[in-house]
Amino acid sequence: VFIMCLDDASIKWMEVAFNYAEHALTNGEVPVGCVIVFNNSEELAVGRNRVNELKNATRHAELVAIDEALEKINSQLWRNEHPNITDSSEVFKNCVLFVTVEPCIMCCAALRAMKIPKVVYGCNNERFGGCGSVLSIHSDKLLDSSLGPVLSSIGGQQTLRAINLLKDFYKQDNPN
Amino acid sequence: VFIMCLDDASIKWMEVAFNYAEHALTNGEVPVGCVIVFNNSEELAVGRNRVNELKNATRHAELVAIDEALEKINSQLWRNEHPNITDSSEVFKNCVLFVTVEPCIMCCAALRAMKIPKVVYGCNNERFGGCGSVLSIHSDKLLDSSLGPVLSSIGGQQTLRAINLLKDFYKQDNPN
Repeated sequence: VFIMCLDDASIKWMEVAFNYAEHALTNGEVPVGCVIVFNNSEELAVGRNRVNELKNATRHAELVAIDEALEKINSQLWRNEHPNITDSSEVFKNCVLFVTVEPCIMCCAALRAMKIPKVVYGCNNERFGGCGSVLSIHSDKLLDSSLGPVLSSIGGQQTLRAINLLKDFYKQDNPN
Repeated sequence: VFIMCLDDASIKWMEVAFNYAEHALTNGEVPVGCVIVFNNSEELAVGRNRVNELKNATRHAELVAIDEALEKINSQLWRNEHPNITDSSEVFKNCVLFVTVEPCIMCCAALRAMKIPKVVYGCNNERFGGCGSVLSIHSDKLLDSSLGPVLSSIGGQQTLRAINLLKDFYKQDNPN
């Protein structure tokens, strides 16, 4: 994982992801937020953790956003606005996911399966991060032919802000 | 992975999983089917691959079944039938997943996150299996405190039947 400076557009998208992380926090969820950006310019879908709300441990921000993106892409309105797109896989190939915390192993595998080529994230996920912190699902060559192409990842964006949000959540949860 | 003989009930549940795998095949999907069984006796939910139908590469049989199980558990009807259950996590802790093909890395992580303690599967998934064939997401101790408890796995049930279903699918796909 390289810590790189982001361009202005990317900084703006990280801000969108953080807004959704804060939204998660105010709703009693682990504060992780994300946005899927198409063609470097279009907000395709946002997501935030909904595990508690839905009592579904798989409803991480990334999976929520993927489902929302698919719903949008398959809508007639969006198709009318993008007449050259015939298949949703063309869309995901040109997307970047911005997320406040490193995707977990499950979500990394899902991003590769969707053929999203790039993820930009805030802090590392030392507990079950899939972009290098625990396993390297994003870049494991063994998975190339099956799970999907390698996922390029840029971590370390506003790390402290992302960590502080998580700390705020765990403080609420454990008042002692 | 140990190849073990199953009891009669488990053989019956594998049959249910295979029925859904065949259902997937007749619907143009990679033929993988599964069933989530509660308390060794109750069919909580079934699932089969729906990736093509929903154009969503994350809709593997296991994730489909998890969502269906949650819908059922949260229904008033099911709650009336199980008055002692107050939380869906109590249900998943007492479930076994029977699936025709070894769960992939994403699905293994999801099963652990849901705290399902055991999976019984047919053939190995040499391409992206998470129960030992490519990675050992099911038993990786690094993930204990975060992703969820270790998932015990029993593979090799009716391996040839599961493989033949997959072969039938890929034959259809590649007529040359």
